[in-house]
Amino acid sequence: MGVIEAIKAVVGAGAVFEGEAIEATYLSDWVVPMTDGRPLGLVKPATTVEVAAVMRVAHEAAIPVVVQGGRTGLAGGATPVDGGLVLSLERMSGVEEVDGAASTMTVLAGTPLQTVQEAASDAGLYFGLDMGARGTSQVGGMVATNAGGNRVIRFGMMRDLVLGLEVVLADGTVITALNKLIKNNAGYDVRQYFIGSEGTLGIVTRAVLKLHPEPRSVSTAFCSVASYDQVIGLLQHARAWLAGSLSAFELMWGDYYTLMTAEGGAPAPLPAGSTAYLLIEALGTDPGADPQRFDEMLEAAAGKGLIDDAAVAHSAREAAAFWQVRDSSAEFARLGWPALGYDIGIPTRDIGRFIEACRARLQAAWPGSQTAFFGHIGDSNLHLHVKTPPAIPMREVTDLVYGLVAEWHGTTSAEHGIGTLRRPYLGYTRTEAELSVMRRIKAALDPKGILNPGKILDGDPGD
Amino acid sequence: MGVIEAIKAVVGAGAVFEGEAIEATYLSDWVVPMTDGRPLGLVKPATTVEVAAVMRVAHEAAIPVVVQGGRTGLAGGATPVDGGLVLSLERMSGVEEVDGAASTMTVLAGTPLQTVQEAASDAGLYFGLDMGARGTSQVGGMVATNAGGNRVIRFGMMRDLVLGLEVVLADGTVITALNKLIKNNAGYDVRQYFIGSEGTLGIVTRAVLKLHPEPRSVSTAFCSVASYDQVIGLLQHARAWLAGSLSAFELMWGDYYTLMTAEGGAPAPLPAGSTAYLLIEALGTDPGADPQRFDEMLEAAAGKGLIDDAAVAHSAREAAAFWQVRDSSAEFARLGWPALGYDIGIPTRDIGRFIEACRARLQAAWPGSQTAFFGHIGDSNLHLHVKTPPAIPMREVTDLVYGLVAEWHGTTSAEHGIGTLRRPYLGYTRTEAELSVMRRIKAALDPKGILNPGKILDGDPGD
Repeated sequence: MGVIEAIKAVVGAGAVFEGEAIEATYLSDWVVPMTDGRPLGLVKPATTVEVAAVMRVAHEAAIPVVVQGGRTGLAGGATPVDGGLVLSLERMSGVEEVDGAASTMTVLAGTPLQTVQEAASDAGLYFGLDMGARGTSQVGGMVATNAGGNRVIRFGMMRDLVLGLEVVLADGTVITALNKLIKNNAGYDVRQYFIGSEGTLGIVTRAVLKLHPEPRSVSTAFCSVASYDQVIGLLQHARAWLAGSLSAFELMWGDYYTLMTAEGGAPAPLPAGSTAYLLIEALGTDPGADPQRFDEMLEAAAGKGLIDDAAVAHSAREAAAFWQVRDSSAEFARLGWPALGYDIGIPTRDIGRFIEACRARLQAAWPGSQTAFFGHIGDSNLHLHVKTPPAIPMREVTDLVYGLVAEWHGTTSAEHGIGTLRRPYLGYTRTEAELSVMRRIKAALDPKGILNPGKILDGDPGD
Repeated sequence: MGVIEAIKAVVGAGAVFEGEAIEATYLSDWVVPMTDGRPLGLVKPATTVEVAAVMRVAHEAAIPVVVQGGRTGLAGGATPVDGGLVLSLERMSGVEEVDGAASTMTVLAGTPLQTVQEAASDAGLYFGLDMGARGTSQVGGMVATNAGGNRVIRFGMMRDLVLGLEVVLADGTVITALNKLIKNNAGYDVRQYFIGSEGTLGIVTRAVLKLHPEPRSVSTAFCSVASYDQVIGLLQHARAWLAGSLSAFELMWGDYYTLMTAEGGAPAPLPAGSTAYLLIEALGTDPGADPQRFDEMLEAAAGKGLIDDAAVAHSAREAAAFWQVRDSSAEFARLGWPALGYDIGIPTRDIGRFIEACRARLQAAWPGSQTAFFGHIGDSNLHLHVKTPPAIPMREVTDLVYGLVAEWHGTTSAEHGIGTLRRPYLGYTRTEAELSVMRRIKAALDPKGILNPGKILDGDPGD
């Protein structure tokens, strides 16, 4: 019996697709399409037992398996490989339990983020991760990529929001570790191996998520500053005043701000011309007192010379307008910029100097090139888009940027992951010793190398 | 050249101790003394380079190595093994950097917790982990055991407070991942493999710790309730009102409270006779408003019938008196109770019913046995001491308790770890599939099995 027949016997013929029956949407993540070959088949299992059975077949036959969530990734992690199976968990969707006492939610891996957020809210609780792709991205993919988003400074990344996991290993073994305990030191913390492993070490089928109290107040301000020293001073000031309620501290450098608020873009909350702009948000639990506390924080900051100008949102609509500027990165395409964006991390203290150095080096190499810097500065996460004169090979720009990132002890990926897109550059900010540990872990958990081969690490047959 | 001579050539003869020159303190952690044999030698390296060189010698000779921090562990993790080396990092102590912008501290592994706390405070910042052994416990050991303590509900365990690590592997390879970034998704998160691995996968030599804003207000209350339903209601209420400032939610069951506040014990904040008592603490940033907010929270709780009686601390001295009741577990020895304590985790919702079931089952098995329950209830962590009639084998009591913990989907160790003391019981709450993954990871990172053999997992030569 062939592999496809064996899998049909497990999941039913209606859950297996081949050839032209595989819709195009399954052949790409958000940015990296499959360019060579075809998948052997697309499988849509309905249960963990089915996932395990499919993996036993694939493992026996040594067939590559690429698992997909909502395919909103930006690194090629979910893009199929030639001759491999694609496993979509879209049928494994649903909230199984919300436990108010433990403040947890147990969900199937194919559940969309927005469903999680709404189920938490229905129970008077809150899921602390949010991002633009909330309607499409799925819990399993968010675990596999250790997703970040806009409120990491307050609630952490996905790693900080996962208490338990159910995972299917390459050989079909099911690891059931649906822990609801905050503290569990009974041996190695097995869930950590799979979070952020981009589908290369195991297939997440269920997760226990950590919930937070639902915020009762939102305070939002938009500020301008003349120097990066002010940015750092303001960050420390806001942390000290707001501590556990500071939920966003977002930087927009002047080049980004000017571009995004130009004709046809977002409305400008403040005049252009400043060195940098900041969006500050606090989520509190005391609607009576929080807005005043937030205003006092801003006044004190102004008194210390940490802010040049500021606007406070007096309605949800005004707050949304502030966020519109920060969330305008889709504009780059409309403005004719190439898809040359970076998701780097730089130690917070040095981001201002890094920006200056990066601009200078790009100008020296390609006079007339443009940049736009923005990011989750409170998480040391900087996004950078570059527009160079035509015909500059992207690879050269990338090598310049990542070379500088390495000099500044940063990372080539803060939140988007490695996939295939950043794999050639992993060595810029990871040492050979670190890569060797990663390879040892890969070999230990997936000795045949069938799970998402060629993602993060080398080693796919096509290499 | 023998192993000891080779190591003396690396670290100097003055840093190597043999036979009677090894002080007794190095032969035990806080509770588990070495009972068989002797260590080959005690080595006190001064640098990471020296640790790496020692490991290369040990690896070549396949000699076991047990690394020690402050030896305040409660599971035998730091207890030497016969014929093995003991590596004490006490000479590798010191704070190397406090970075206010990143809110991080870089420290050597041998640095005591109290030194970390004081250095953070000197910089106007705060290290979020505290425990009784603060003067003795060291950062490396705290990373290796994923230490917890009193404020996990607010700041997390050690895993949540470590941003970067430098680690020496079994073969002497140095992994330098002194990451200061909050977000770094460039490949697998290598630091996770070593946190909580109890010295079995690598030797932590440096750490980058995450700091928080220094709290400016402390509010503390002591409450009594008549039922566990009230406990759960009060926890949800306190979370919703205080969110990011709730820093402790500590349970003392009636049996524990009566024992600890009896003649010669701690002063009683409230009359005895209630089902349970709670210590609630909030660490805020607004000294002007926080105490009132805390009082309002308590009043609202009383109005909802979630509290029977409450006392609020009006001074640091009163707060310390509240904590004295909670931190009285050293009293067990004075009161003549055997060293029969457990560090279990139970899903928060079920802790009340677990306590009743556990007492009933102990009474049925050994009529007249006494219990005392207390713990970090907001973290689903319950401590339990048992006093049975003389001559009851501890092993039988332990099997009864852990059997019940398994039925209730709990853990045999919430914060103290496995070491050797809980190794025989690991299978109660970890599946064979999980243990198999742990063994694969161990074999991948320490193929000769020389790092802390026999701790957590089986496999020491003496087994």
